[in-house]
Amino acid sequence: MAITRADVERLASEYAAKHPREILRLALENVDNIAISFSGADDVILVDMASRLRKGVQVFSLDTGRLHPETYKFMELVRERYDIRFEAMFPDHAAVEKLVREKGMYSFFVDGHHECCGIRKVMPLRRKLATLDAWITGQRRDQSPGTRLAIEVIEDDKSFGTADRPLLKFNPLAHWTSAQVWEYIREFEVPYNELHARGYVSIGCEPCTRAILPNQHERAGRWWWEEETKKECGLHAGNPIKR
Amino acid sequence: MAITRADVERLASEYAAKHPREILRLALENVDNIAISFSGADDVILVDMASRLRKGVQVFSLDTGRLHPETYKFMELVRERYDIRFEAMFPDHAAVEKLVREKGMYSFFVDGHHECCGIRKVMPLRRKLATLDAWITGQRRDQSPGTRLAIEVIEDDKSFGTADRPLLKFNPLAHWTSAQVWEYIREFEVPYNELHARGYVSIGCEPCTRAILPNQHERAGRWWWEEETKKECGLHAGNPIKR
Amino acid sequence: MAITRADVERLASEYAAKHPREILRLALENVDNIAISFSGADDVILVDMASRLRKGVQVFSLDTGRLHPETYKFMELVRERYDIRFEAMFPDHAAVEKLVREKGMYSFFVDGHHECCGIRKVMPLRRKLATLDAWITGQRRDQSPGTRLAIEVIEDDKSFGTADRPLLKFNPLAHWTSAQVWEYIREFEVPYNELHARGYVSIGCEPCTRAILPNQHERAGRWWWEEETKKECGLHAGNPIKR
Amino acid sequence: MAITRADVERLASEYAAKHPREILRLALENVDNIAISFSGADDVILVDMASRLRKGVQVFSLDTGRLHPETYKFMELVRERYDIRFEAMFPDHAAVEKLVREKGMYSFFVDGHHECCGIRKVMPLRRKLATLDAWITGQRRDQSPGTRLAIEVIEDDKSFGTADRPLLKFNPLAHWTSAQVWEYIREFEVPYNELHARGYVSIGCEPCTRAILPNQHERAGRWWWEEETKKECGLHAGNPIKR
Repeated sequence: MAITRADVERLASEYAAKHPREILRLALENVDNIAISFSGADDVILVDMASRLRKGVQVFSLDTGRLHPETYKFMELVRERYDIRFEAMFPDHAAVEKLVREKGMYSFFVDGHHECCGIRKVMPLRRKLATLDAWITGQRRDQSPGTRLAIEVIEDDKSFGTADRPLLKFNPLAHWTSAQVWEYIREFEVPYNELHARGYVSIGCEPCTRAILPNQHERAGRWWWEEETKKECGLHAGNPIKR
Repeated sequence: MAITRADVERLASEYAAKHPREILRLALENVDNIAISFSGADDVILVDMASRLRKGVQVFSLDTGRLHPETYKFMELVRERYDIRFEAMFPDHAAVEKLVREKGMYSFFVDGHHECCGIRKVMPLRRKLATLDAWITGQRRDQSPGTRLAIEVIEDDKSFGTADRPLLKFNPLAHWTSAQVWEYIREFEVPYNELHARGYVSIGCEPCTRAILPNQHERAGRWWWEEETKKECGLHAGNPIKR
Repeated sequence: MAITRADVERLASEYAAKHPREILRLALENVDNIAISFSGADDVILVDMASRLRKGVQVFSLDTGRLHPETYKFMELVRERYDIRFEAMFPDHAAVEKLVREKGMYSFFVDGHHECCGIRKVMPLRRKLATLDAWITGQRRDQSPGTRLAIEVIEDDKSFGTADRPLLKFNPLAHWTSAQVWEYIREFEVPYNELHARGYVSIGCEPCTRAILPNQHERAGRWWWEEETKKECGLHAGNPIKR
Repeated sequence: MAITRADVERLASEYAAKHPREILRLALENVDNIAISFSGADDVILVDMASRLRKGVQVFSLDTGRLHPETYKFMELVRERYDIRFEAMFPDHAAVEKLVREKGMYSFFVDGHHECCGIRKVMPLRRKLATLDAWITGQRRDQSPGTRLAIEVIEDDKSFGTADRPLLKFNPLAHWTSAQVWEYIREFEVPYNELHARGYVSIGCEPCTRAILPNQHERAGRWWWEEETKKECGLHAGNPIKR
């Protein structure tokens, strides 16, 4: 592995304004054991860009067991269309069964989404990240005023990495806007989740995602019954707070 | 009627930057025989604003016979919610029957939407406007780069008015943006067409309207098989061209 | 015209158990000025059978201005697929406008469907029937226990015909069951309204039709807020009552 | 446990024509360690009947991770409405991840549904059944001409039971028809899966279930790309073949 923790600050600054493709190139050329985390939404452009750089890139999704049928369909389409190694991480049955037995199928509407996200997303993610040296996400600063304002294009992931086992995190879209992402989708004819044609912008689990109204912020379609500042599922728990 | 053709240029300039409410007030206080043209979309805010100014305002829609079920439902909701006199203009059966007999139910996909719009929208509109001294529309400059860039808040309608029978046209939202319209909807809890919660922004007839993708211009949801510059149905045929 | 009123009783008895195709053949061979009334539902098999007997058969539908988008689509598909002369009768604008102005878009939920059906279906039908010597319908005895139990395969239509101007009515499916109709659709690969794949059996206007539950009678999907025995729109007002 | 393997044949014959309620009563009064297997479809009437007999009945569903959003909603509704102990069995993550990694999300369309059902349904079921002395299912003879013609109301389950550890299987609806089930739902105002109001009769996993057309057999909505005689997911693998 050619990039280490020590390089992160310098590279983050050097690549801060570069095209996502260049950040992806840096990542893929310098870290072997690396994978793209694909949510089934407009972060598909990372898969498209990476596939143009090299074959057989590792891509993983978190199949929570509660995704929209349209999202499963889209993941399969991406798996078939691109020359990638695709994997879907699945939750631990004992944890899911216990949650449902005690609180039913929709506990998140009552006591918040963190317990369910913990079981269905964070645990499986942690299992996957434990096998990697770096991961690549589709996070963007414009996605969430509360929680994503200060993300860098390259980070030392202290939430999922440890002192002994460092983990790099690449956010090649950190500085891009939703408009740029969609311009890319149209220009390169990238396939998209059909939910995007029904008013959905940000896409997560089915019970916790909804279409938004015209001119509404995309994050309004996620965990809408909770406060703005808490709208992260724990995947990006370590995001720095901008003050 | 207190406002005449001669006042249009001066008033258009004087009111160019005023709140839509002020333009509506000017219209309703100075023209008795006036009506709001309501499309069943986000121009509902005109009905909301007008209802706060006076009771029993005249509102008419063009029921083409091909609107979305959701739009009929929404029109009824508006009719019941506000203290207005609501009317739906309906197309002439002989003209519709002739078109369908000769070209079927979807001729617009083959030879353009103007013939169908002419029969289902423009003729009934003409019939209605012939009874009025002025009409109020929800047109905005930001809706259509090709055709609405130069509209004024008050106009002398030379398409539907004649030398003998002048017709004023008020466009109180001409200078507002989609974002402002939706801010108003949220702030005043104005009811909206449920299609807006399914990715639809601009709303017309069912076969000729579709939801748009994130970051797509709202006009992309209308007559998408035709060129950008022709996307008017004839209701606003006289719109000046900005050069 | 080879068949007259005087023949009706004899022929009705003679053809009572014959295949719908034979009844259609009798009708088409003996009456020149004849048309099939097509509702946009499973009566499409009449169009299919008739097209196999002769080219250019007259088919008309009642476009009430409130049909499902899927039904318009299906009517167009039928118009294009078969060699027929297709026509859609449309309601009189003055009558529709008056009804909406006085009672809104959903008066039928308040004071019954007869006024709206009268304007949107019966008047246009009457206009069409005034030009014919006979019409062909898809009525079946099994459709409505209350109102269609006693229909014959050939009738003297006293509702729409007069002493001076007789009108014959052929009901080639009178004795067929829903199961037989669908067996025909499958065997001959007849196209069907896509609403049938979403739980709809009987199909009328959008606000007045709904999907039914498993094992529910098809008529439960029509005017469900009214009593069973009144579930006719007036097209078949003269149906004999079985005691 | 009062009923043993030795009683099965006699009781099956004695209860062959009894009301499902009586068969349920027999089961619940004579086996402590017993649970209803609830699919999220019209077998909800078993839950309704059992709840009228006793409180806290054990009910389990197989949450394959690919059910319809409507089915999850319905299961929760049932969990909340009835005084039952509800549990959802969830698949093993390693097995699901391996299948998806090797064959993607829709392998069943290519090489049959048995592998996926094995992982997502049969293994979790086996885990559950290993803790029980008897289970209760909603199987009916009229559901599947190929595979359910010979089921009895009480059986010695040799597929999931063993010589050492016998397992009884109660099918209280074996002799009922779909029409009777729906009559019960209407009479007792039992809640139902909203998919039933959209043309769905039999309900399984989302990708493997579809609505049926009028007069189509309910099993046509399941694994429609496979042969009739194979339409079992393995839950009822031991069903006797009627010759």
